[in-house]
Amino acid sequence: MSQIPTFSDAQIDYFMQVALNEAKLAANEGEVPIGAVIVKDNQIVARAHNHREAHQLATAHAELLAIEAANDALQSWRLEDTALFVTLEPCIMCAGAIINARVPVVYYGADDAKGGATRSLYQLLEDERLNHRVVVHPQVRGDEGGALLQDFFGQIRAQRKRNKKSQTL
Amino acid sequence: MSQIPTFSDAQIDYFMQVALNEAKLAANEGEVPIGAVIVKDNQIVARAHNHREAHQLATAHAELLAIEAANDALQSWRLEDTALFVTLEPCIMCAGAIINARVPVVYYGADDAKGGATRSLYQLLEDERLNHRVVVHPQVRGDEGGALLQDFFGQIRAQRKRNKKSQTL
Repeated sequence: MSQIPTFSDAQIDYFMQVALNEAKLAANEGEVPIGAVIVKDNQIVARAHNHREAHQLATAHAELLAIEAANDALQSWRLEDTALFVTLEPCIMCAGAIINARVPVVYYGADDAKGGATRSLYQLLEDERLNHRVVVHPQVRGDEGGALLQDFFGQIRAQRKRNKKSQTL
Repeated sequence: MSQIPTFSDAQIDYFMQVALNEAKLAANEGEVPIGAVIVKDNQIVARAHNHREAHQLATAHAELLAIEAANDALQSWRLEDTALFVTLEPCIMCAGAIINARVPVVYYGADDAKGGATRSLYQLLEDERLNHRVVVHPQVRGDEGGALLQDFFGQIRAQRKRNKKSQTL
């Protein structure tokens, strides 16, 4: 039987900080800043950030990459007794990957009103009809996870404005 | 603007046959037999089958692998103007990957009452709230896609019975 890992507030803060650091790495690479970490026995077994543009892979979201890295590190597709920390509410694909990998608990940062599939649009991780259910802790340092995204898209909009202005000069 | 590819009945039969052949390859490798093909301009750009056990990857479903292979072949995370053929109704993860990759149309074989996310449990590909919608053609040679799965699980059950019998002798 899979255990649901529990954490102190300090541990939750720490692991989310590592995920936030991953998100910042994504921003530095011009990727939408989202980061994820997978923890087992209080150790980080995988960390990843969004790589969609660099790899031109539709699937290269932080959570999916972290799950694959954890599968690799633990040599098992089953991620029982682990916890996933991610800076943004997972999308449909990542929620499905979390279920498929049997991750028992997820801590996430900012809500995603447009695409979030664990709370906002759907509550896929808590569907009684599926063969696996996940405990979800929403809005963990969500302001910080959300601020990274707002800054990123703000910079893109400002850049576009500058480009438009220089074209009209 | 992305085009939705259209096919003759003979083309649909052919591409689903290739997906069924991929599913048979999976069965031969001891994997749950599911196969997928992605087509662009009437050409196959990617084909894949379930590899979860061999790779010990929770994400190694046929559709997800086919999407990643097509991203690689076309050097783009956007799979506009493509079609995906798969022998079983996609799960939540794969439905999400189809949306994330902007695949415009999906033909699938057997319904999956326990985990299907495009018709059975959810209709994720047709959600008006999301930034991409997918045309879904269900039950294309579904009897054949379903029979492969039934045979596979039937053999596993028979093997278990034999093992149990030999243990009690």
